[in-house]
Amino acid sequence: MKFSKADLDSYVTNGFLVQPELFSAEETQKLVDCLNEFEKNPQPGHVLEKNSTIYRAYHGCHLYDETYDALIRKPELLQPARQILKDEVYLHQLKVNLKQAFSGEHWPWHQDYIYWRNEDKVPTSAILSVMIFLDDITEFNGPLYFIPGSQRAGCIDSDKASDSPEGWEGNVSASLTYQVTNQQISSLVQQGGLFSAKGKKGTAVWFDGNLVHASPQNISPFQRRIAILTYNAVSNAPQDEHIARRPAFLNSRDRQPLRELETSDSLA
Amino acid sequence: MKFSKADLDSYVTNGFLVQPELFSAEETQKLVDCLNEFEKNPQPGHVLEKNSTIYRAYHGCHLYDETYDALIRKPELLQPARQILKDEVYLHQLKVNLKQAFSGEHWPWHQDYIYWRNEDKVPTSAILSVMIFLDDITEFNGPLYFIPGSQRAGCIDSDKASDSPEGWEGNVSASLTYQVTNQQISSLVQQGGLFSAKGKKGTAVWFDGNLVHASPQNISPFQRRIAILTYNAVSNAPQDEHIARRPAFLNSRDRQPLRELETSDSLA
Repeated sequence: MKFSKADLDSYVTNGFLVQPELFSAEETQKLVDCLNEFEKNPQPGHVLEKNSTIYRAYHGCHLYDETYDALIRKPELLQPARQILKDEVYLHQLKVNLKQAFSGEHWPWHQDYIYWRNEDKVPTSAILSVMIFLDDITEFNGPLYFIPGSQRAGCIDSDKASDSPEGWEGNVSASLTYQVTNQQISSLVQQGGLFSAKGKKGTAVWFDGNLVHASPQNISPFQRRIAILTYNAVSNAPQDEHIARRPAFLNSRDRQPLRELETSDSLA
Repeated sequence: MKFSKADLDSYVTNGFLVQPELFSAEETQKLVDCLNEFEKNPQPGHVLEKNSTIYRAYHGCHLYDETYDALIRKPELLQPARQILKDEVYLHQLKVNLKQAFSGEHWPWHQDYIYWRNEDKVPTSAILSVMIFLDDITEFNGPLYFIPGSQRAGCIDSDKASDSPEGWEGNVSASLTYQVTNQQISSLVQQGGLFSAKGKKGTAVWFDGNLVHASPQNISPFQRRIAILTYNAVSNAPQDEHIARRPAFLNSRDRQPLRELETSDSLA
């Protein structure tokens, strides 16, 4: 279940790798079925779109749902995560970004690691995410746009956006706390171009914590739900004195190495 | 320069037709070069993005610019317009929609004819538009999304949107006066799917006044400028008593049949 040498080289060069339909339709459907329950049972990590009653994201689902708890321990995710990070890993963050039909708002241009560095005190960028498509993603329903190779620019310092909500809410809103400037985006795109992460439901896309990305609003009648799991090297966990900076649904308290599901297990 | 039988059939079935690179790079560049002048010389028909100093659109450019005045009389536009509308034609409306890099706002789902019917009193939907790409249009910079075949639903009645600006300004804003409901869009897309109007600069796209369309915001570093010319059958012009309802930059005062440019003419 590890990446081939060619895949690993491509990941290092581009900062991302697409694995079409890594999860079966049945497994993906189990992840989708949970969402109805989440909607009915509000949690502190559930956030709304701005000036709206429509959910934008559910954070920390593995903390209260056994299907998502099983997901983070799937061998097909843990093995490549360990391979890339060259260490045992723990789950630093998990969320389902919903970007609902007709109403899902955009995500401005940003990097993820700057949040984990500034807010959670993750020491280095030896951290990655894998997103799992819960719907078919096309050019119409708000795919992520990547700038290939932009992770090689490292963590780009940024002032806090003046119109961003205070506290962790700003870190997950359409007015993001840390954004990459238009001038920097133009320069990075001139070098690396743009890539749109599209594919069938069940597809997995791995991406570097410093990969610059954004995604447009969803004006289509199709939902665009993705689960994003962020694995960190155990050796790269924040120091104990920093452990409680953000809520546990954004900044895991459990930093022990994750053990794989037994082969007989599948998503509950 | 007329449409072939197959092209015409496709236009009637789908409600639109794409002519890749109908205009040369040189002619397209002339249309682009004018835009700098328009920006420096504000006109009543120039409109801004909401809460912004960035231009969203220039209306009625043919009324004050000779290149755009020549454009509306190009044989490669007039001949298919007459062929489809089965009559002599006049230009009812012209605009350049800018959708600028990083900031161009979306256009909600709507039909065009309802504006010409309700606001200008154009009697029937024997009216069409042709847009000319002034930039390369990709999935990233806010292409128009069409619902193929949706023009066959006719003009879908709609209440005025409650958050739309009063007067003609609402007709050209991101909070459009007349919109098609999400429920209607879902149903139309289930029948016809979605088509994204992409292509190289100089491409022309013809579309029916009742074709349902929308376009997303432009978060990319690339501009997405289009000129849209609306031709109406001379026999379908509003009655004289209605002629001055909206400003001339939205609702032409000159309803005489357009004469073609001499072959020796090109865009000035």
